[in-house]
Amino acid sequence: MNFTRGKLIYEGKAKVIYAVEGHDELIWQEFKDSLTAFNAQKKGSFEDKGHLNRDLCSLIFRRLQKAGIETHWVADLDRHVMITQRLEMVKLEVVVRNILAGSTAKKFGIEEGMKLSEPLTEFYYKDDALADPFMSDEQALMLKVATLTELGELKRLALLVNRELKEIFGAVGIDLVDFKIEFGRAASGKLLLADEISPDSCRLWDQKTKEKYDKDRFRRDLGNVKEGYQHVSRLVKEYWESRV
Amino acid sequence: MNFTRGKLIYEGKAKVIYAVEGHDELIWQEFKDSLTAFNAQKKGSFEDKGHLNRDLCSLIFRRLQKAGIETHWVADLDRHVMITQRLEMVKLEVVVRNILAGSTAKKFGIEEGMKLSEPLTEFYYKDDALADPFMSDEQALMLKVATLTELGELKRLALLVNRELKEIFGAVGIDLVDFKIEFGRAASGKLLLADEISPDSCRLWDQKTKEKYDKDRFRRDLGNVKEGYQHVSRLVKEYWESRV
Repeated sequence: MNFTRGKLIYEGKAKVIYAVEGHDELIWQEFKDSLTAFNAQKKGSFEDKGHLNRDLCSLIFRRLQKAGIETHWVADLDRHVMITQRLEMVKLEVVVRNILAGSTAKKFGIEEGMKLSEPLTEFYYKDDALADPFMSDEQALMLKVATLTELGELKRLALLVNRELKEIFGAVGIDLVDFKIEFGRAASGKLLLADEISPDSCRLWDQKTKEKYDKDRFRRDLGNVKEGYQHVSRLVKEYWESRV
Repeated sequence: MNFTRGKLIYEGKAKVIYAVEGHDELIWQEFKDSLTAFNAQKKGSFEDKGHLNRDLCSLIFRRLQKAGIETHWVADLDRHVMITQRLEMVKLEVVVRNILAGSTAKKFGIEEGMKLSEPLTEFYYKDDALADPFMSDEQALMLKVATLTELGELKRLALLVNRELKEIFGAVGIDLVDFKIEFGRAASGKLLLADEISPDSCRLWDQKTKEKYDKDRFRRDLGNVKEGYQHVSRLVKEYWESRV
């Protein structure tokens, strides 16, 4: 099938979103080479990042769909384009944590690396101007971000995604520490996994060395950012491409 | 019954806690004249504050007990002492909001004064060193602050307290905007309302003029702090003392 890029809809921090000509139901999503952190106060980029993330994200989404989790993925184009379904996005970032790290570890004064006895799901209100504040279910209901049924479904789906991602990364010796995902509503009201899954949105630690292969390399100035992204992409692709 | 002050147990920001000689099951609680805000970065005091708060808190606790909500209140002594049951405190601040104001309004970029269609309950992790961070139910469970059953019971009790407090303050022309309460576990495991309820822990607005009669007068340098506390205490006492 041929797709033609349409009108610019929105430029985000890591992706640019366009319409697809003649297909109101689709979105043309370009993965950028740029990297941002701390609500875009820190900026960077490396060549080929958009391509690496598009490829890894596509592989993961296709794998999740095989496991029965619907995503917005439709097709890959060029090196850094993904055609996706057009959805009404839920204004929430859904975070799942298997090992405590990042903002929640800091908030509770707990050293990074504490293994959780069961996955922790968290909601953050998606609003750049407010720096995406953490919110409870009750606050999400108060702001009418989603219905009670949807909040339950978001958690259920996030935990299913977690189970699959743990398998995908675990098979290549990487611990899935945590990740952030976003969902959108299809015309039917059904919630579909949207946005992306990549080293931008996951914490990925080598099971043996605890080396980080994710955006923390950039956030924390650990160096070898590109090499980290390349490493995890190569491992996952080598193991999983033939299994999707 | 006669009580004798025992050993100092703990000095907090607004109260000093002592043992009661010969009564391991009781606590001697002195209400201080000091005022603090922003996790004690701002400090002040006014004469007779301890007495005013002890009196108002005692009246409210006795009224709540009459309405079937168990509290730790046992007796009043002197001008600023309350004898209470000794409980194992739950490390949570439970907040109920009827009108949006303070930290939650700010977090979501909403102007103060938005009436909520139903009361919003929130948990904050009681830890001065961490500045009492907001937490979700899942985070409270992860940190084993309380059990799932207890979290439900805390919300249920907080909403009952809200209903009674709205009546107490509403009867004298004051809107209960929000309040913070704390609970403790009795030996039986039962959750009892503890700590205090006073203009230190509530937002209280005049229904007509929207004048504030609470700690925001101190937090926000509105002046007439003592007069605000005196005003609300006098109104509530005049109306309710004979009705408790």
